[in-house]
Parts: sequence; C-alpha cells; structure tokens
Amino acid sequence: MQIAIGLFPGFTALDAIGPYQVFTQLPDAAVVLCASKKGELADDNGLLRLNIAHTFEEVDAPDILVVPGGFITRRLARDGDPIVDWVRAAHPGTTFTASVCTGALLLGAAGLLDGLDATTHWCAYEELARYGATPTEERVVRRGRVWTAAGVSAGIDLALTLVAETYGDAIAQAIQLGIEYDPQPPFDAGAPSKAPAEIVELVRSRSAAREAEVLGGE
Amino acid sequence: MQIAIGLFPGFTALDAIGPYQVFTQLPDAAVVLCASKKGELADDNGLLRLNIAHTFEEVDAPDILVVPGGFITRRLARDGDPIVDWVRAAHPGTTFTASVCTGALLLGAAGLLDGLDATTHWCAYEELARYGATPTEERVVRRGRVWTAAGVSAGIDLALTLVAETYGDAIAQAIQLGIEYDPQPPFDAGAPSKAPAEIVELVRSRSAAREAEVLGGE
Repeated sequence: MQIAIGLFPGFTALDAIGPYQVFTQLPDAAVVLCASKKGELADDNGLLRLNIAHTFEEVDAPDILVVPGGFITRRLARDGDPIVDWVRAAHPGTTFTASVCTGALLLGAAGLLDGLDATTHWCAYEELARYGATPTEERVVRRGRVWTAAGVSAGIDLALTLVAETYGDAIAQAIQLGIEYDPQPPFDAGAPSKAPAEIVELVRSRSAAREAEVLGGE
Repeated sequence: MQIAIGLFPGFTALDAIGPYQVFTQLPDAAVVLCASKKGELADDNGLLRLNIAHTFEEVDAPDILVVPGGFITRRLARDGDPIVDWVRAAHPGTTFTASVCTGALLLGAAGLLDGLDATTHWCAYEELARYGATPTEERVVRRGRVWTAAGVSAGIDLALTLVAETYGDAIAQAIQLGIEYDPQPPFDAGAPSKAPAEIVELVRSRSAAREAEVLGGE
C-alpha cells in the first residue's frame, strides 16, 4: 500500500502533516512525499523548508493520493501546474484520491470534481464551483473514490476516516489514540456557522487580501 | 514577539507543525524553527526532512519557546542533549515555555517541572514523574509560565490557548476559524479513558516496543 502526499511550493503545512501523521502510523503502508522536482520546497510561510526525495514521475501509481491546499492552488489549478497533471494521470489507478483544504481546486482542475459534491476551505467555495463541483459544508465529503476535506486541520479527520475505510475501525482508533486526538479547542469558533460574525468577516477579508498578495494583483 | 520551536532529529512532525500552523497566522509574531545545528534534520519517520536555518545559539531569547516530543526525547532528556541546555538557558527570559507530547521530558530534564503538575503523552506519565512532575490527565496544563500539552495533536489546543492568553480571544478565534479547526474525529477514541480497553493495550504495547527500538535495547 503506497500513500502519496503530493506537494508544491506554497503548500499549507498542517494540510499535509495532519494526514502524514496519521498515515505514517500504519504498520504496512509506505508513505511518500513527492513534488515536481527533488530538492528544497518551502511552505506558504517560507519558514518550513523540506528536502523532497521523490518526483511525481517516480510516484506514478499510488494506492492513495492526497494533496494539501494553500493560497497558491488557485493559480496552480488555473495554470495547469505539474501537480494537476500528476493527479489526472494517477487518479484512474488509485483506490482513493483525496484533498485537504484548497487542494480540492487541484482535483477540480484535473477534472475529478465535475458534477460531484465536494468541500474545501470555507473561503474557497465559489472558486470550487468553477470546476463543476457542488460546494458542501461538511468536514469530509466522500463521493466514491474522491474524498475532499474542509480547511487545514480537517485533513486529520479525513485521514482517520480513510484509514477506517481501508484498514477497519480498530486500526483507526489505535492511531487516534496514539496521536491522542481528543480535541479540546478553547473556543467553538472553528466553522463560519459557529464563530462570531465579526470574526468571520475578519478572516474572510484577510483571506481575500492574502489571496490577492499570493496571486500578485491578478 | 519571537516564537521559537526547538527541534531535534527524531521529533514527531505533528507535535511541532500543529503549533507552527497556529503561530504563523499571528500578524506580528516571528516564528523560528531552530535546532542544535543548521542543515538537514529528519523526523521520527525519517521521511519528513527539514532544512534548518537557525541554531539554538542564534535564538537565545525567544518570548515563547515550544518543544515537540518524539520517542527519542527519553534519551535526549536522560543524556542532556543540547536542546535541554537551550531550554534551561532560555527559560528565565521567556514569557511562556511550553511542550507538546513527550517534549515535556525535555522541560523536565531542564529542571522546569520539579514540583509542578504537568502532562505529556499518556504512555509517558511514569517517565515524566522521574523529573519531579505530577502527571496530570488534562489536555493542556498551565502552571505559571510553564505549559505542557498531551500527546501529538494536543499542540493545536495548546497553541490556540497560548494565543488567547497573549493576544486575546478574538485573535485566537480568528486563527481557529482560519485553520477551520472544528474537529470531528470519526471515533471518540482519542484518550485512554475513552478508547476500548483492547485498543489501549494495543497502543501501549506498540509504544513500548517502539520506545525500546528507538532507545536501542537499553
């Protein structure tokens, strides 16, 4: 069982590391981090710098494929980045193809979401709809082999659900206990339907500003 | 405001990246990842390979200091690794010194937990007690300037709580919403008091086996 997490410069760290932490606890799965080229690749803060050991070409037949998000995915999806080609080429052979956060836009650009319900970060529903998907306000949306998760931290829930589906509930529970995932956020403000209205507006406007910055005034 | 996350070969990825993801959303904080030397440093799976840009010496006066865990911390704590010296030297000047998971053993070895309530991964309570701490089964334990979090994923809760304390509730809620931290684990099995007994035993025995492996039959 090979589980590939596809990366790109500007990915959001927790989107990828949440699933990574879950999948690497599996006793008989090979997790591989890959990108369009080997060598250094930084996250969206430019602070987390990874050394990538495997190219997409080397990882052409994963059983499970996962892509994280990041503001930059809007551009990668639009321009047809190598990660979009990789998703398109690998998807027919996967057991599951999944995204976290705005990684859903990459699945969309690869043509996987046309006519499907799907989710993404709540700030990107409109963008998601451009790929023919019906944005759905759920934590994890499962439609056949294509699974999408909500923003950033939702990758942990997606990965545990994928493990339960593939390896059974006991293995998923053991991993949940191993990473002591008994979440106790200090506030109940993690979704736009739950957070105070002014907080929702604050985050929405900051997200729009950051998006404009990353997309360079397009 | 400088927030330092101190790393070491063999750290557990999500322990560090959970807080990293929260802190890097702060508009006016400088997050820095540091280690005993610059260059490549791998996590406990050997798959996530980081390029470290800053040494502990360069980061000698952080405002907030956070250390992750990993099986290897048992050895680092016992042998007095450079990260223990760094914690000991920097702690008098910090606003908060914090740990995630078995990072608590590093605080313990630095002499910070003697006589204090503290927490760590639930498999390491006994080890924690060796440093004079009273192991406490809570998600985040706050005792003055010394904060400790439970296993792996608890670092997200710790970081949001620290942000609320330092920057106020609104900023913490905005970050929670930004990373869409509205957790919905597929099972309620994230703590030993909640998981089925046979799952608890499975994880405990695997943890002991992994610990023995990492510590090399000592």
